[in-house]
Amino acid sequence: MTTLDETHDPLRTSWVDSANGHPDFPIQNLPLGVFQRGDDAAIGCAIGDQILDLAAIAPLLDPAWQRALSQPTLNSWLARTPADERALRRRLSGLLSDPAHRASLEPHLVAQSAVTMHLPVQIGDFTDFYVGIHHATNVGRQFRPDQPLMPNYKYVPIGYHGRASSVRVSGHPVIRPSGQRKPPEATEPTYSPSRRLDYELELGLWIGRGNALGSPVPIAEAGGHIAGYCLLNDWSARDLQAWEYQPLGPFLAKNFLTSVSPWIISADALLPFRKPMPPRPAGDPAPLPYLDDPADREQGALGISLIVTISTEAMRTAGLPLHILSNGEASAAMYWSAAQIVAHHSSNGCNLSPGDLIGTGTLSTADATGQGSLLEISQGGKAPITLPSGEQRSFLEDGDELTLTGWCEASGAVRIGFGSCSGRVVPSR
Amino acid sequence: MTTLDETHDPLRTSWVDSANGHPDFPIQNLPLGVFQRGDDAAIGCAIGDQILDLAAIAPLLDPAWQRALSQPTLNSWLARTPADERALRRRLSGLLSDPAHRASLEPHLVAQSAVTMHLPVQIGDFTDFYVGIHHATNVGRQFRPDQPLMPNYKYVPIGYHGRASSVRVSGHPVIRPSGQRKPPEATEPTYSPSRRLDYELELGLWIGRGNALGSPVPIAEAGGHIAGYCLLNDWSARDLQAWEYQPLGPFLAKNFLTSVSPWIISADALLPFRKPMPPRPAGDPAPLPYLDDPADREQGALGISLIVTISTEAMRTAGLPLHILSNGEASAAMYWSAAQIVAHHSSNGCNLSPGDLIGTGTLSTADATGQGSLLEISQGGKAPITLPSGEQRSFLEDGDELTLTGWCEASGAVRIGFGSCSGRVVPSR
Repeated sequence: MTTLDETHDPLRTSWVDSANGHPDFPIQNLPLGVFQRGDDAAIGCAIGDQILDLAAIAPLLDPAWQRALSQPTLNSWLARTPADERALRRRLSGLLSDPAHRASLEPHLVAQSAVTMHLPVQIGDFTDFYVGIHHATNVGRQFRPDQPLMPNYKYVPIGYHGRASSVRVSGHPVIRPSGQRKPPEATEPTYSPSRRLDYELELGLWIGRGNALGSPVPIAEAGGHIAGYCLLNDWSARDLQAWEYQPLGPFLAKNFLTSVSPWIISADALLPFRKPMPPRPAGDPAPLPYLDDPADREQGALGISLIVTISTEAMRTAGLPLHILSNGEASAAMYWSAAQIVAHHSSNGCNLSPGDLIGTGTLSTADATGQGSLLEISQGGKAPITLPSGEQRSFLEDGDELTLTGWCEASGAVRIGFGSCSGRVVPSR
Repeated sequence: MTTLDETHDPLRTSWVDSANGHPDFPIQNLPLGVFQRGDDAAIGCAIGDQILDLAAIAPLLDPAWQRALSQPTLNSWLARTPADERALRRRLSGLLSDPAHRASLEPHLVAQSAVTMHLPVQIGDFTDFYVGIHHATNVGRQFRPDQPLMPNYKYVPIGYHGRASSVRVSGHPVIRPSGQRKPPEATEPTYSPSRRLDYELELGLWIGRGNALGSPVPIAEAGGHIAGYCLLNDWSARDLQAWEYQPLGPFLAKNFLTSVSPWIISADALLPFRKPMPPRPAGDPAPLPYLDDPADREQGALGISLIVTISTEAMRTAGLPLHILSNGEASAAMYWSAAQIVAHHSSNGCNLSPGDLIGTGTLSTADATGQGSLLEISQGGKAPITLPSGEQRSFLEDGDELTLTGWCEASGAVRIGFGSCSGRVVPSR
């Protein structure tokens, strides 16, 4: 684990005025992403409400980085070492704080509001985990009141493969999927639009350096393979899921769309917000040695505040404000750390590659204030919620727009944020 | 469904002598693959025991194809239309049958024995299905004697996402994976090398043209999205699987390696070997309309013979011949057709891309002669088999080499084959 450096200095400000006091992208954050620049996609760094075009300023950066930073995705850059990532961060922090560089850099700033963002990488594989223990408990209780968690849950960071091709950046419309549904009262399934469309609040991990097939990543090195984080919405069709998932797990209930926020919030930017892992409840087993690392125990949790809001067509028409569905926090929700996820994923020799995406699984709080899905909030549809418009919701209706936001605050550090991850439901075709 | 043309003419022969009577690659097959040519990977066509270098002979082909055929993978080529695929096949059949082309083409033949083969594509996503009904029944019976098949099985072509990064071409060593195992008699799991390493005999489908996110492929068009087929071995660690798979399905038990045969046997080459789908047993439901197509019912099954052999270190030392573990056939094993698989996979709008790989799931016969995994053959380890060397096997031991082979025969047609898909187990690191 590396230590804080001048890039984290809370007193450092930028000559990009909008960065100072910006809730997401002050100079202490400096996330990388990919934006549409004319006819091409280009790598940029968020600063305040602007984007600095990194390909355009390559002459001011280490020549060894030029090729990787001139690509239309970040895959090549993510394959480099954490030392390179830190060096770029220090360089950008220096350039954007020193007014001497203003004149040469300002022409290469683009307003975020003026451009379209893309996925930051070409995703090789997408894996989704299930480390949110309160979510696993809440959902398990609906099916198995006596034994909400499976016997393996506290030994195995449970995960499964997702679909890489249908991951899209925030803003992509959520076309209501059709599929086979068989309500309990029906004798036969029908193929029709889902009636139990849901969201899932997750964090995404972006893999940096990969590992070779057959070579597990030791837990103590796992952090060095995580380039950064994003917000992730694992849209879910609960009626399709209930009918299809046995015996091999969720499939079409999930792979119609997964949304991510556009910026890769680097592991370095998150350093001031790391916390000890929450103590395991009395009686829980200790992690097996391949998942146990003292340093990770001390600072493997991420202090990230997470909020989910909804607006419906009627709410927008009436000018009503967003309604908060969930107000939670990552560190208390995750039974397994990001490093444990990576160590486990590779523990059988499975190779991870730069730009792979890993979801944490739904992150819910222990109480009802921060449940990360409508399946939990409406108790499987039995307890619909009432919105400020007077509308009720058990699951998502056409026109509903969901937005995930996340940010970090800690004493002695400047707040940084993830931006947002949004999607609006549109009718089935 | 297209009809037979001159490329299927059983009387056609090639001036490549080894092609005539070749069990796998006569001029009626002409599969594409990627081989190592000097420092590069190049696209070639198998003919007899040779490979014709397609990039090198591009001047003899349609100029519109040149760019796609000069890539190091077949992804760009597979994105083209079935009409292009048929046109290339006709052109290659003409060139390789007409002795007038011998002098100009012969310099661009390479012996298959002299080169390394690569994966034919960069795989975007790998999905594994479970359409082998006898396998699903055999495995289900071990866990649920009263109800081997889940209630959804005869309505839903069950599938789940696999890992694309760990798919390798035939010949890649099978490093015995380590992972969490908890035998029934143990109170806690341990992390250690798998003791129940197994194989699974499957066919692989290579996706040609893709579909856009949100746009399902209708069943009547699904065949046009399948470029071809291969043999696939879904190596499986049964002890890891038993402990990890609930509630989200197999994960580390599978993603340490998946092996495929190197040549894409085109849907066109397989035309003479298509058969009616086996009639559904009395009482089974009809497929829902989105999975039902009269033409597919008439010729959606693939008449492919499949054999699995094993050789152990001791057998090789003693010069003993390969031992046949399984002798089966695809058409009788598949409850759902390849077209139904593609239609279902995309039925929620999930986008498939050129070069995606889809496994059928293990293909076992109804009787004991063609069971596609040791889990079935040894009845979960309860009935070890005895090999010609006197050794017993419930699961795979280090040094064991598995080989899948497949071929098609039909009256009035020339036999074509898939080549082979092999892997030898090496000790855990």
